[in-house]
Amino acid sequence: MSREPRTAIATVCLSGALEDKLPAAAAAGFDGVEIFEPDLVASPMPPGEVRLRCADLGLAIDLYQPFRDLDSTDPQRFAANLRRAEHKFGVMEALGTDTVLVCSSVAPDAVAEIDLLAEQLHALAERAAARGLRIAYEALAWGRQVNTYDRSWEAVRRADHPALGLCLDSFHILSRGSDPAPIAEIPGEKLFFLQLADAPHLAMDVLQWSRHHRLFPGQGAFDLPAFLEPVLRAGYTGPWSLEVFNDVFRQADPARAAVDAHRSLLALAEATAARGEGSGQGSDQGSGLVTDPVAEPAPELRGHAFVELSADESLAPVLGALGFTRTGLHRTKPVERWEQGQARILVNRSGGPVAVAALAVESADPPAAARRAMRLSAPRLPRERGPAEADLAAVTAPDGTALFFCRTGARAVEGTDWTGDFVPTGETAGRDGAGVGVTGIDHVGLAQPFDHFDEAALFYRTVLGLEPAATGEFAAPFGLVRSRAVADPLRRVRLALTVSLLRRGEWAPGVSEPQYVALAVDDVLAAARAARAAGAPLLAIPDNYYADLDARLALSPERLAAYRDLGVLHEETPEGAYLQVCTEVLGGRVFLALVQRIGDHDGYGWTDAPVRMAAHRRRRLAREHVRTRL
Amino acid sequence: MSREPRTAIATVCLSGALEDKLPAAAAAGFDGVEIFEPDLVASPMPPGEVRLRCADLGLAIDLYQPFRDLDSTDPQRFAANLRRAEHKFGVMEALGTDTVLVCSSVAPDAVAEIDLLAEQLHALAERAAARGLRIAYEALAWGRQVNTYDRSWEAVRRADHPALGLCLDSFHILSRGSDPAPIAEIPGEKLFFLQLADAPHLAMDVLQWSRHHRLFPGQGAFDLPAFLEPVLRAGYTGPWSLEVFNDVFRQADPARAAVDAHRSLLALAEATAARGEGSGQGSDQGSGLVTDPVAEPAPELRGHAFVELSADESLAPVLGALGFTRTGLHRTKPVERWEQGQARILVNRSGGPVAVAALAVESADPPAAARRAMRLSAPRLPRERGPAEADLAAVTAPDGTALFFCRTGARAVEGTDWTGDFVPTGETAGRDGAGVGVTGIDHVGLAQPFDHFDEAALFYRTVLGLEPAATGEFAAPFGLVRSRAVADPLRRVRLALTVSLLRRGEWAPGVSEPQYVALAVDDVLAAARAARAAGAPLLAIPDNYYADLDARLALSPERLAAYRDLGVLHEETPEGAYLQVCTEVLGGRVFLALVQRIGDHDGYGWTDAPVRMAAHRRRRLAREHVRTRL
Repeated sequence: MSREPRTAIATVCLSGALEDKLPAAAAAGFDGVEIFEPDLVASPMPPGEVRLRCADLGLAIDLYQPFRDLDSTDPQRFAANLRRAEHKFGVMEALGTDTVLVCSSVAPDAVAEIDLLAEQLHALAERAAARGLRIAYEALAWGRQVNTYDRSWEAVRRADHPALGLCLDSFHILSRGSDPAPIAEIPGEKLFFLQLADAPHLAMDVLQWSRHHRLFPGQGAFDLPAFLEPVLRAGYTGPWSLEVFNDVFRQADPARAAVDAHRSLLALAEATAARGEGSGQGSDQGSGLVTDPVAEPAPELRGHAFVELSADESLAPVLGALGFTRTGLHRTKPVERWEQGQARILVNRSGGPVAVAALAVESADPPAAARRAMRLSAPRLPRERGPAEADLAAVTAPDGTALFFCRTGARAVEGTDWTGDFVPTGETAGRDGAGVGVTGIDHVGLAQPFDHFDEAALFYRTVLGLEPAATGEFAAPFGLVRSRAVADPLRRVRLALTVSLLRRGEWAPGVSEPQYVALAVDDVLAAARAARAAGAPLLAIPDNYYADLDARLALSPERLAAYRDLGVLHEETPEGAYLQVCTEVLGGRVFLALVQRIGDHDGYGWTDAPVRMAAHRRRRLAREHVRTRL
Repeated sequence: MSREPRTAIATVCLSGALEDKLPAAAAAGFDGVEIFEPDLVASPMPPGEVRLRCADLGLAIDLYQPFRDLDSTDPQRFAANLRRAEHKFGVMEALGTDTVLVCSSVAPDAVAEIDLLAEQLHALAERAAARGLRIAYEALAWGRQVNTYDRSWEAVRRADHPALGLCLDSFHILSRGSDPAPIAEIPGEKLFFLQLADAPHLAMDVLQWSRHHRLFPGQGAFDLPAFLEPVLRAGYTGPWSLEVFNDVFRQADPARAAVDAHRSLLALAEATAARGEGSGQGSDQGSGLVTDPVAEPAPELRGHAFVELSADESLAPVLGALGFTRTGLHRTKPVERWEQGQARILVNRSGGPVAVAALAVESADPPAAARRAMRLSAPRLPRERGPAEADLAAVTAPDGTALFFCRTGARAVEGTDWTGDFVPTGETAGRDGAGVGVTGIDHVGLAQPFDHFDEAALFYRTVLGLEPAATGEFAAPFGLVRSRAVADPLRRVRLALTVSLLRRGEWAPGVSEPQYVALAVDDVLAAARAARAAGAPLLAIPDNYYADLDARLALSPERLAAYRDLGVLHEETPEGAYLQVCTEVLGGRVFLALVQRIGDHDGYGWTDAPVRMAAHRRRRLAREHVRTRL
C-alpha cells in the first residue's frame, strides 16, 4: 500500500461550519484538507487554533484557497492585490500551510498579455518565497483571460519562479473538453496541487455546472483515470484532493458525505491502477504512477443469493400465491426461507417495518469480497451469530440495507453456507409443477434517501464491482424521480436505485416510494394467471393505459385483453420488451413484481413507472379512506 | 371585464393525479384545462367520466396534448402514426374536446422536406376534420426538423387545411430568442392555441431548461407582454393557457399552485393591457387586444406603516435597548406599539411563536389596494375587530404573513387610522435624544417555505405593485440559499425573500432560517454603541471576518476596531456600502438589524449572510448546549 495516494478534501465539499467539517474529514480517513477561505472567515477559531485542531485530528492543511483576481491591468489595483496577498500569507503562516491556490481572474481588469501576467505572478511568487510559501496557479474554466490549463502553464512557465507552480483541477480541464494528455510534458515539480471532481455531462453554463453539479469521482461522467494518467506520468506526487461543489452534499450530514468522498478516492485509485496495468504502464517506469491496487479486486458475482424482507403476517400468503414454497425455518431466529427456482426470499418476522432488510449476492470469494468492502469504508454489519450459524460477511449500505456475500449450497466454503442455518421444512420448491414459473430474482428496486443517492450508486458499484447500467428520470404523481441501475456485466445481479428529485414535502405527506423485488419469469401472462388464481393481490392498471398501448403498439386484441385482465405493464424499445405485473404494496413499503424480459431489453420498466405509482397511490388512498370510515 | 382573457392550465403544471388537479384548477378560477395525456393514461377515469367531472367543475377541456412524432420519412411508420392518431381522436371525442396539440417530431425519421411535411399534416387534418376535430401544430424548440414558429407556420400554410392551425408556446419561441413580432402577420384564425410559460434566463440545454425550470408568467425573465402583443394583434381570441414544467410546482400542493398560476395570468393580462395603453395600441384598433385592466392599478406606496411581531417577553427589552419607546397599548388586545423615528413595531403577546405576524404598508388608497389584492386571489385575512377599531384592509401572503394596507395618522381616512386603536402611554418616541437614531424600517427579511418562493415573489410584487430589486444566491452553513428582493421604485418599501435551494433535511434538523426587521440608521456605529450600552444583545462576529475585511478593503485601523468591537458587517460594491449590526435571534425565529446604506447601495448584505448565519447558528448551538447541561 506504499504507493497509495495521500487523500485530501476541500472543506467546501462538506456541510456545516469548520468545527463540523474537520472532524468529519478526519474520521473518514482523509490525510489532509484544503481550507476554503469563506469557512475560515466565518469561523470563530483563529488560524492558529485551526492549525492545532487539525494537528489534533491528524489532518495536514494541504492548501489555502482561493485567492481571486490577482492580476490587473491597473497598477494601483495590482498593488492593492499584492497587499491583500500579504495579509493572506500571514493567515497561511498561522495556519501552518505553505501553498495557496490563486485562480485566474474573472475581473474586467484581468491581464490578457501573457508576459505582463507572468510578471505579476512572478512578483507574487517572490513575495511568497520570502515567507517560505508557494503559489499554485489555476485556470478557472470561466476565467476572463486564462481559462485553459495550457494557458495557465504558459504563464507559469514564463514567470519561471521556483515558488510558482500549477494547480490542476479535473473539472476545469474536462468540462471544457481539453485533452489532458499534454499534461505529461509539464515538469512534475511544477505541478503543485491536484484537485479532483467528477460531474455529469450537462449542456449548461460551465460556472453553474461547476457550482452546483460537481460530484465525487466515479459518480459522474468524466474519465478521471484517463485524466490522472498524464498527471502521474508528469511526476505529480502531491495529495489527491477533492473539490466538489454540490447542492446535495452541501446540505447533507458532513460525516456521511466525508465517508462517501473518501471512498470515491479509493475507488479512483483502484481504477487508475487498473488502467495503468491494462496499458502496460506499470511502476517500472518510475513515473510516480500509483499501481498498487488499493483494495482487492471485486470477486465475480454469480447472482442474487437471497433477499431478506422484514415482514408482518401479510407477506407469507402473498409469497405462497406467487408460487413460493417455505423450504426452511431458521434454527434460532424467526426467519423463514421461501424458494422458487433460483429465487430465495427470507421472511424475517423479528418486527420492524416491512422493508428490504438485506441483499445477498453469490460471490466467487465471499471473504475477499468482504475485505474489499471494508477497505472501501463499508461499515461492517454488527451481527449476533449463534454457535452453529454460518459466518456470513456482511456490511451496511448507505440506505441501511444489509449486504451479504455468500456461496450457496455446494459452492460454499465450510462453515459459510447460509442454507445450513435453516431446518428444512420438507417442502421442496419448484418441483412437481409447484410455483408460477419464477426462475430467479431479476433485480431489486431500492428507493434511496434523498441525501444518499449518488453515494449509494457509488457504494453498490464499487463494493460489489458493478457497472452503471441505465439512468432515467420520470414523473411520479408527487414530482420527478431520478433512477439509476447498476449491474454486473453478465446481468446476474441488478439493482435499480431511485430518488425523488426534490426531498418530499408536505404534499403527499409521509409517503416514501416503495422498494420491490422483481422476480424473473419466462411467461408473465401464465405466471400472473397462476398467481391470481392462487389469490395474489395483483395491482389493477387503468383501461386508459391499455387504450394508449393499443394506439401505440397495435398488439393483438387477445394479448391486449390478457394484459388488461392481469394488469400487465408493457415497455417496448427497439431492443425488446419489459413486461411486468406488480402486486399491491405489502405492509406499506414493499411490493413484488413478476418480470419477463423479451429480446435484449436491458431496462427496468421506468416508462411505466408513473402509471404503476399512480395505481399504488390510489390503492393506498382507498385503503386509508376505508380505514378512516371504519 | 368583458375583454378579460379566458384562462386555462395544462394538467402537467400541477402535482398529483387528475382527481387532484381538476378540482384545484377549478377552485383557483380557471375556465379550462389542457388534458396532458400521461395524466389521463394513469387515471382510472374513462375519458367520458373526465368529461363529466370537468363539466361538473365548470371547466372546459380546451386541448388534448401532446401527440408526438407524427410525420415520418417512412410511409409505413407514418401510416402507423395516423392509426395512432385515430385512436386519440376517439379519446378526444369521449373527452368532448375538439383540439389536439401535435408537436414537431424529435424522431430520427422526422420529415425535413417542407412539402412532404405539409402533405402529412394535411392528411392528418383531413382525418381530424372528418370527426369535427382540429390540429394545433407546435414547433418544439428542440424539434428535429421544425424548431421555430416560422417553420411550423410555413408547414401549416402550405398544408392549407381549415382543420389545421398553429399552437404557439411562449417558451419554445422565447427560449430560442426568436422575434415574436412577425406573429402579427399570421391570420388570427390560424392561431388555434396559445400556451404561456415564463422562465429564468439559463444558459443550458433547452430541453432540460424547458422540462425543469419553466415558471408561471411574471416569475421569470421573459417579456411576455411583448410576446402577447403580436399574438393578440394577429387576432388570437382563444384561451391563455399555462404549460409550465417546474420541479417545485410538480411536487407542491396543487390547490396552492393553481391559485399561484391563476394569479400569474391575471397579472399578465394587467401588464399586457398596460403595455397596450403605453404604446397607444388600444382597443380602438379592434385587434382583439385585451385592454381592460384586470384589476385596479396598485396605489402608490409611501413606506412601511408597521411590522407586527408575535413575541414572548424577550422582545420588549430588546426594542427598548434599540431605542424604541412604547407609545401605545391596544384598546382590546395584548398588543403594544413601539416607535422610533418612522419605524413602528407592534408587539403582539397573544401567544404563538415569535415571528413576523404582519406587514403593513402605507398606501395612497388602502381600499383600492385591498380590492386589487382580492382581485389577484389574495386570501382575505379573517379578523376580529372591536367596535371602535380601524377597518384595516388585510390579506394573507403565501408564507402566512398578514398584509395590511394603511394610511397612518394625518393621512388616514376616517375610521381607518390604525393608530387610533392604541391608547397612548404618554411616552413620546424619538424626542429629547431618545432612541439610537433609527429613522424607519429599511426592509423586512422573510424566509419563505420551500414550495412557495416563486409564488411569494410574484404575490408581493403584483399585490403591492413592487418591482424585482435584486436576486442572489449564497452558501449558508446548511446549504445554498436563493434570495430575491422586491421593492417599490422609490425604495420606500423593500422586502427580502429567501429560500433554501433544497428543502431542509435531517442535517441541522428543525432549524428554519430566521426572519428579520432591518432598521434604517444614518450612523450604524453610533447606533450600535448606544444600543449595546443599553443592553441590546448584539451578535458577535469572528475576528477572521475583520482580518479578511482588512485584507480586502484597507479600512482605517480605527474603523476596523470599531467594527470588530460592535460586530459590524460591511458589504461594499462600486455603488456604495451596506453596513449592518444584527441582534441575536430572539425567541428562535426573529432578529433585528441596524442598517446603514452608504452611497447608492441597493443591496441587502447577502455577501455577509453566510458569516451572519454561521454566527447565529453558533449562538443557538451554544444556548442548546447550556440548556442540555442544566
